[in-house]
Amino acid sequence: MTTIKDVAKHAGVSVATVSRVINAIGYVHEDTRRKVEDAVRELNYTPNEVARSLYKRKSRLIGLLLPDITNPYFPQLARGVEDRMQESGFRLIFGNSDESKEKEKDYIQTFIQNNVVGLISSTNDPDSSAYASLNLPVVFLDRIASDRPSVYADGREGGRLAAEALVERGSKRITILQGPEHIRTAQDRFRGAAELLEGKAIDYHIVHTASFAFADAEKWARQLFKQHPDTDGVIASNDIVATAVLHEALRLGKKVPHDVQIVGFDDIPLSSLLSPALSTIRQPAYDMGRAAAELLIAFVEGTPVVNRTIQMPVAFVERDTTRKML
Amino acid sequence: MTTIKDVAKHAGVSVATVSRVINAIGYVHEDTRRKVEDAVRELNYTPNEVARSLYKRKSRLIGLLLPDITNPYFPQLARGVEDRMQESGFRLIFGNSDESKEKEKDYIQTFIQNNVVGLISSTNDPDSSAYASLNLPVVFLDRIASDRPSVYADGREGGRLAAEALVERGSKRITILQGPEHIRTAQDRFRGAAELLEGKAIDYHIVHTASFAFADAEKWARQLFKQHPDTDGVIASNDIVATAVLHEALRLGKKVPHDVQIVGFDDIPLSSLLSPALSTIRQPAYDMGRAAAELLIAFVEGTPVVNRTIQMPVAFVERDTTRKML
Repeated sequence: MTTIKDVAKHAGVSVATVSRVINAIGYVHEDTRRKVEDAVRELNYTPNEVARSLYKRKSRLIGLLLPDITNPYFPQLARGVEDRMQESGFRLIFGNSDESKEKEKDYIQTFIQNNVVGLISSTNDPDSSAYASLNLPVVFLDRIASDRPSVYADGREGGRLAAEALVERGSKRITILQGPEHIRTAQDRFRGAAELLEGKAIDYHIVHTASFAFADAEKWARQLFKQHPDTDGVIASNDIVATAVLHEALRLGKKVPHDVQIVGFDDIPLSSLLSPALSTIRQPAYDMGRAAAELLIAFVEGTPVVNRTIQMPVAFVERDTTRKML
Repeated sequence: MTTIKDVAKHAGVSVATVSRVINAIGYVHEDTRRKVEDAVRELNYTPNEVARSLYKRKSRLIGLLLPDITNPYFPQLARGVEDRMQESGFRLIFGNSDESKEKEKDYIQTFIQNNVVGLISSTNDPDSSAYASLNLPVVFLDRIASDRPSVYADGREGGRLAAEALVERGSKRITILQGPEHIRTAQDRFRGAAELLEGKAIDYHIVHTASFAFADAEKWARQLFKQHPDTDGVIASNDIVATAVLHEALRLGKKVPHDVQIVGFDDIPLSSLLSPALSTIRQPAYDMGRAAAELLIAFVEGTPVVNRTIQMPVAFVERDTTRKML
């Protein structure tokens, strides 16, 4: 039977490195990781035994780090993770980093002290050293980490779809609310929207927004219509910001969607209950949570993993903040 | 110096019972508890030493059980708990029971296995045996438990204020959406509203609603206007249900607040962003979370506690789903 030593020898790396790759623990350079994966395939190596020995005294506890539980999008992710974990007999403890790096480190520490066997993180900072040095498998959720296991939605396509929806429905002076610069999923959305508008030679403005939080959304909505009062189409960075934009537009006496069309991002439970109901780009949050849980379980149990990064599809949800197409 | 044995002798109970009272652990009959508290006072006993010996090997970890993190009200509570805990160097792990008794027991088990030194619970079922038998202090948050430490808002006054707001503003045919029957805070709201309307001899209808969840809110909103199409005032069981009622009223072509006035309950962050913005009864969720944390910390650290139940004030927040008073 093939052993982990055979794999290490074949790949020309140490046993520790093979173990790191197999268990998605810590950072391994992409080239090295490929070499190990090739060796695993060529030797038809089954890593279950390694996993078992590594996790001999394993708990069934998983840590889930969310950046902001007051944003209704994240609880949907959490429910997906939780349901899938429960099916396999794992339990979940949550941490809420509140978009603070210090709180995040604190929670990671708490998780480790409580012997979690794996971590799912929707951190704003996946490339932080706090993760690279962790001695347990981590899956990033709704976040993209360089060469680390991640589950996220196709933000670029989402941005493209949002811009296309506005253009097809006649908006000529579009404003994009650009989400936080340090969050790659947010920037992908922005880029997708900007690319489509540039391709169609349509003029657009950008309003920079530094967070996704409720507390700030009203401020940006006001700024938007102050700086660009003739905007007739808004691509919001998420549904909370879109809700604030809708509220501000109506407050200013604008008719939605007649005077200004609005497209959100996420499709939180509340969006369909707004008046008019919010047109938005749907991320399959619950399914993303499930997929991340499934990926982490595979790492924890030592099941071979084919795809370490999973990109999920998005869709335009047509409601009443965009005009009807003829 | 007075010892715990002196207190037990003075009160005519066992040392274990004194310890249970002092540390708010498990169930103690109210009469017994009073006897112990009197003895503590009369002998001027300082329980810190007991607490220290009981928690010699204590962690700094607290468990927080929430019934439904997809309801934006609970994350506000959680933030209050979290911020106050952090100030005293405690860390928090969350569980989400999803209104399921089984999940709740599961989380309590997880918390115990991870050596939490205390528990804050917004359970739907505070009188469950799962809590009575726990060997650590528990504080109920946004819930009222018989003779156990609890922090909650004055729901009866809230219901009264909601009904009064509608009556003063001219509603004649009021419908109350009655929240889940097994949750006492929900029933207090209902009772407060019903009492006021009966006192003013105003006719009202009741629509029973079995949960607070998003998934069901639209259903109840439809049922409301189907059963009582001439309703001109709605007292919703929370802001999510109120949002659904607003949406349904507008969908049916009713003018809000001209044809129908709506009052919610909670004041979640989104309520002010609705169009029209939601009039509601504000619960001080963040402060309630902080108060519960403070109470639990006192129990954990063995500080004498004067008030084991804290009722916080509510207020009517006038926005645009109620008519302006002349």
